[in-house]
Amino acid sequence: MAAGSGDSRGLRVAIGPNQDRHLTDAVEVAGGSVVPLSEAQILVWIGGPDRFPELPDAIEWVALSTAGIEHFVDAEVIDDKRLWTNASGFYARGVAEHALALLLGGTRQIVRSAKTRWAKGTVDPAVRTLRGSTVSIIGAGGIGRELTPLLKACGATVLAVNRSGHTVDGADVTMSADRTDEALAQSDHVVLAAPDTPETRHMINDRTLPLLKPHSWVVNVARGPLIDQAALYRALAAGALGGAALDVTDPEPPADDDPLFDLDNVVLTPHVANPAGRLTEEMAPFLAENLRRFAAGGELLSLVEVGKGY
Amino acid sequence: MAAGSGDSRGLRVAIGPNQDRHLTDAVEVAGGSVVPLSEAQILVWIGGPDRFPELPDAIEWVALSTAGIEHFVDAEVIDDKRLWTNASGFYARGVAEHALALLLGGTRQIVRSAKTRWAKGTVDPAVRTLRGSTVSIIGAGGIGRELTPLLKACGATVLAVNRSGHTVDGADVTMSADRTDEALAQSDHVVLAAPDTPETRHMINDRTLPLLKPHSWVVNVARGPLIDQAALYRALAAGALGGAALDVTDPEPPADDDPLFDLDNVVLTPHVANPAGRLTEEMAPFLAENLRRFAAGGELLSLVEVGKGY
Repeated sequence: MAAGSGDSRGLRVAIGPNQDRHLTDAVEVAGGSVVPLSEAQILVWIGGPDRFPELPDAIEWVALSTAGIEHFVDAEVIDDKRLWTNASGFYARGVAEHALALLLGGTRQIVRSAKTRWAKGTVDPAVRTLRGSTVSIIGAGGIGRELTPLLKACGATVLAVNRSGHTVDGADVTMSADRTDEALAQSDHVVLAAPDTPETRHMINDRTLPLLKPHSWVVNVARGPLIDQAALYRALAAGALGGAALDVTDPEPPADDDPLFDLDNVVLTPHVANPAGRLTEEMAPFLAENLRRFAAGGELLSLVEVGKGY
Repeated sequence: MAAGSGDSRGLRVAIGPNQDRHLTDAVEVAGGSVVPLSEAQILVWIGGPDRFPELPDAIEWVALSTAGIEHFVDAEVIDDKRLWTNASGFYARGVAEHALALLLGGTRQIVRSAKTRWAKGTVDPAVRTLRGSTVSIIGAGGIGRELTPLLKACGATVLAVNRSGHTVDGADVTMSADRTDEALAQSDHVVLAAPDTPETRHMINDRTLPLLKPHSWVVNVARGPLIDQAALYRALAAGALGGAALDVTDPEPPADDDPLFDLDNVVLTPHVANPAGRLTEEMAPFLAENLRRFAAGGELLSLVEVGKGY
């Protein structure tokens, strides 16, 4: 989809709910200027849906700063009167690094080691290598493209699964989502990177978990509801799975007494694959690029497909 | 150094202290045969120095199965009457993977997360990315060669430091060991992969720790004594360092009440970078290659430099 009106010098950009130096710089680098919402054609929104403003009709594009936009969808903030972008593009590389950290944190028994204090007899036989293993990435879009070369460098075979089945560069095989079961059955480990939609909700469940192997690790850097967490707990407690390494949970945050905290073969990080502390710093170059594209009438990166929910 | 006597069909190989299917297969794949020690020209030894046998003069080559050989040196087992090889070659790839797992386990706050149970406010600001960081590998030999492409894939700049200063392929810079201080001062993180020798002992100490940065992680996949552990603890407790991720300690194993266990910014794994459970399986193809080289009079991989202690 093409968009825009004239060269970037003219771009009038509002930033909210708070001002931010990194983003102001990005607007100026792209030749635009930061203006109040009432004078803007573009809104850069670095908050959640709660304080989202009434949009003037003149707003042609809203740049959101979260990768998943289901909360904006639920709040009925997103309309079809303008373009919307999410943050999946600039989050991808950091999230891919975190996915690798979680997978290795599991397979190399980093957290089991922390929880058991030098229990070599327990840890040593459980350590596995990615070399020669097969890892599927479910929902292989931007994160999958960044994660694939990391897994390949570690010697893994990569099965990329995405809705379209469009080839993911570097992956050994790309499959369309209707072949997800087949991918799981071929995998040593699985990384979830899909959006939270009615189709993906609870895709890891009592029926699909047995497709995995007793040494398999399930990594989730996407959204908690992709996993039926009660089913996951049952599989983990029964020893039917190597482990689970999750940056997201359902509900989130988990309850203090969530039994997942007590399992040696669970790695939990508190939704920090893309740390909030560096949000605008990471977003700035991505925003500048998209402002240039907008000004040139080009296709925006990470355009939301309104109606599909991502 | 060239070695050997005729083609590999003739190679007579003893395996001890126990027999092993993977190694027997490797000998046969290389065209040799497994014989008692008294009839052998080669000894493959998959134990420690304690039960090491009196060697017949006919033994031309002893293949040890540990990467570090200081215990054999201490026990005065190693002589200059024959060739000795260690296991640094076939350990390298798995150890490199473990080093990456430890580094990411630190920088991505995997263990702090496990110890604090979803303390997002604490964990989030501490998460760092390897992208754009500088990582030095001290003692960059076989492990360094394998680790370098993993770090490069993550977007890090790699400083390789080794005794000779011989270029490590793929590293951004290779420095000789006399420039170690310079490397540390330029680094965000440091991975220790050096042998335990008088020169490397306590190389991380009260003088060198301040060369690092308050966000730096120190990773040790080599030998515990490379680090003055009391100095390390002081730096960690004082917040002068991002953290330490150690697969080896001094002493090893650490005492149950070692204060390192109680720090959120310490990642300890129980010397499992190369898990014992897969030793002979991993060693087999490496042994077969070295047997072929021996038979062909070629240079053996991972030849011990007798007198230098590695």
